[in-house]
Amino acid sequence: MENGQACGAPLNPAIVFDMVQAVQKTAALKAAIDLDIFRAVGQGPGDVPSIAKHAKASERGIRILCDFLVINGLLVKEGNSYKHTPNSAAFLDPSSPACIASVAQFMTNPALIDTLAGLAEVVRQGRTILPGEGSVEPENPLWVEFAEKMAPMMGPMAGPLGAVVLEGHEGPMHVLDIAAGHGLFGIEIAKQNKQARVTGLDWAPVLRVALKNAEKAGVQDRYNMLPGSAFDVDFGGPYDAVLLTNFLHHFDKPTCVGLLKKVHSSLKPGGRAATLEFVPNEDRVSPPMPAGFAMTMLTTTAAGDAYPFSELHSMYEEAGFKGTKAHPIPMSPHTIVMGNA
Amino acid sequence: MENGQACGAPLNPAIVFDMVQAVQKTAALKAAIDLDIFRAVGQGPGDVPSIAKHAKASERGIRILCDFLVINGLLVKEGNSYKHTPNSAAFLDPSSPACIASVAQFMTNPALIDTLAGLAEVVRQGRTILPGEGSVEPENPLWVEFAEKMAPMMGPMAGPLGAVVLEGHEGPMHVLDIAAGHGLFGIEIAKQNKQARVTGLDWAPVLRVALKNAEKAGVQDRYNMLPGSAFDVDFGGPYDAVLLTNFLHHFDKPTCVGLLKKVHSSLKPGGRAATLEFVPNEDRVSPPMPAGFAMTMLTTTAAGDAYPFSELHSMYEEAGFKGTKAHPIPMSPHTIVMGNA
Repeated sequence: MENGQACGAPLNPAIVFDMVQAVQKTAALKAAIDLDIFRAVGQGPGDVPSIAKHAKASERGIRILCDFLVINGLLVKEGNSYKHTPNSAAFLDPSSPACIASVAQFMTNPALIDTLAGLAEVVRQGRTILPGEGSVEPENPLWVEFAEKMAPMMGPMAGPLGAVVLEGHEGPMHVLDIAAGHGLFGIEIAKQNKQARVTGLDWAPVLRVALKNAEKAGVQDRYNMLPGSAFDVDFGGPYDAVLLTNFLHHFDKPTCVGLLKKVHSSLKPGGRAATLEFVPNEDRVSPPMPAGFAMTMLTTTAAGDAYPFSELHSMYEEAGFKGTKAHPIPMSPHTIVMGNA
Repeated sequence: MENGQACGAPLNPAIVFDMVQAVQKTAALKAAIDLDIFRAVGQGPGDVPSIAKHAKASERGIRILCDFLVINGLLVKEGNSYKHTPNSAAFLDPSSPACIASVAQFMTNPALIDTLAGLAEVVRQGRTILPGEGSVEPENPLWVEFAEKMAPMMGPMAGPLGAVVLEGHEGPMHVLDIAAGHGLFGIEIAKQNKQARVTGLDWAPVLRVALKNAEKAGVQDRYNMLPGSAFDVDFGGPYDAVLLTNFLHHFDKPTCVGLLKKVHSSLKPGGRAATLEFVPNEDRVSPPMPAGFAMTMLTTTAAGDAYPFSELHSMYEEAGFKGTKAHPIPMSPHTIVMGNA
């Protein structure tokens, strides 16, 4: 969406109505995934009766839902038939290897979005109104679902992250993957460097998902598990590299600095700490996706944020790291931030 | 949003993520209205501490919420201060006469949008999962709120509707305003024609809102009330014109035809019946706002729809009307459809 500042643009309340009704978009996408609409469209012929039959749903409902997906650019309509757009074919049809439908299911988990109904109260209090520490409450089952469903979004980041962490680093190494989740980042290191051993740290039920992925990748012999909280367990080590992916954003700055100090002390001299983060520009309002991620942190955590690079840099420096640099991942909303012990 | 069919556009999952997280936009706009953020921004100076003080809210919450509004084009950020866009100044600051914040509050009424959480089931069943007939259940208190809060959206349509209904018609006349709501359409007729008498039909608690508006406009002496359901009460008459605004879309075609026949029989020969509707093109997927309105009808009614002109035309013809024409209202998503008895 364009910033509404353009000179001379006529006043138009459409931007307000579009935002008011945006909740319909989330619901429509979720319903279409739940009803397997995108598979039906991909299989053809794409007319209302055949999609309704596939979805075991009414023709009125299917027609209005599919029209709504067309209006929002996720399908096209030719006569009375619906066809994929290139994006829906690639990212929403379960027959596509790039399908991210499970990501959409995770991101619309009621445990995450129901709190939006109380957003005014969240803003008043300045923190999640979920119980305790919100999404990072110990042993929150949300993270098993994250591990299971977010892999299609995070998988494409693993290659670039591995390349940055391993650059100029050959031979045997030991890597700690904090908040391993699906484990794909540590597993990628083990794939790119056959002499790397990886220790995944996360809640025990989450690590079971990571171990399955390590087995699929054939690296389970070099994959160890360290179950528990990153704030409580002894990291062991010393490590050549520590991965901290999608983690710092859940916490306030002092907590991040404390954790980074613990990471620093677990690294060999010259070892590397690499975070994967949504890093907005210093204005905190661009680009839209990393900047907008702060809203998710407001609603689901006590003090998390989408930190601009200057703030991540100062956390790293305060924890004792040197030469901290940002490596944006092209064509993605993610940035790798890496510092040296 | 553009239809995603453009040739050669690179694949980009951003369209999917944007739709997944659209629910945050609705929540953010509603929270900003509830916290009176747009008034605070208008009064200045627009920094986080002063907005937080005005809203009695946390600085973390205000900063993240206001950044989110900037990302979505509803505010601008200059340094650390937030300013209005032309659209937010006109349509969201309560000090603006064109403010439509109350419209946003009606459209985000939990009675209307909570059902979106069950959209897959709605699509399966092909009808609202709200009790009974959904939003048109008799005496639904929703319509008092509609009458009170939707006037800023509907007010600007009253002038054009009045002009179409009154064109070439002078002198004494009697007009029936079915589903009068706020009453603004019938009141406009009484304002444009000092010899017009208007009868407003709606549930009694709704008509109290209409009467207040008639008093404000100084036309209460020519404003009569007919409380009840349009399907049950005797219309009386005969009338020179009948208004049917924002009403037919709630019902299926046979119900609409039945009601239009009742309207026809209450009109003098040559009398006019004027509906105000969201009328999409025949493809039912454009323009976005009238076409997208079908989703609201799917989720909140048993059989309503956003009818293309061809379908409204055939309903009118079947009910005995002649010369039915569409009069789109410029710069609005609404169309007037008028036929002659």
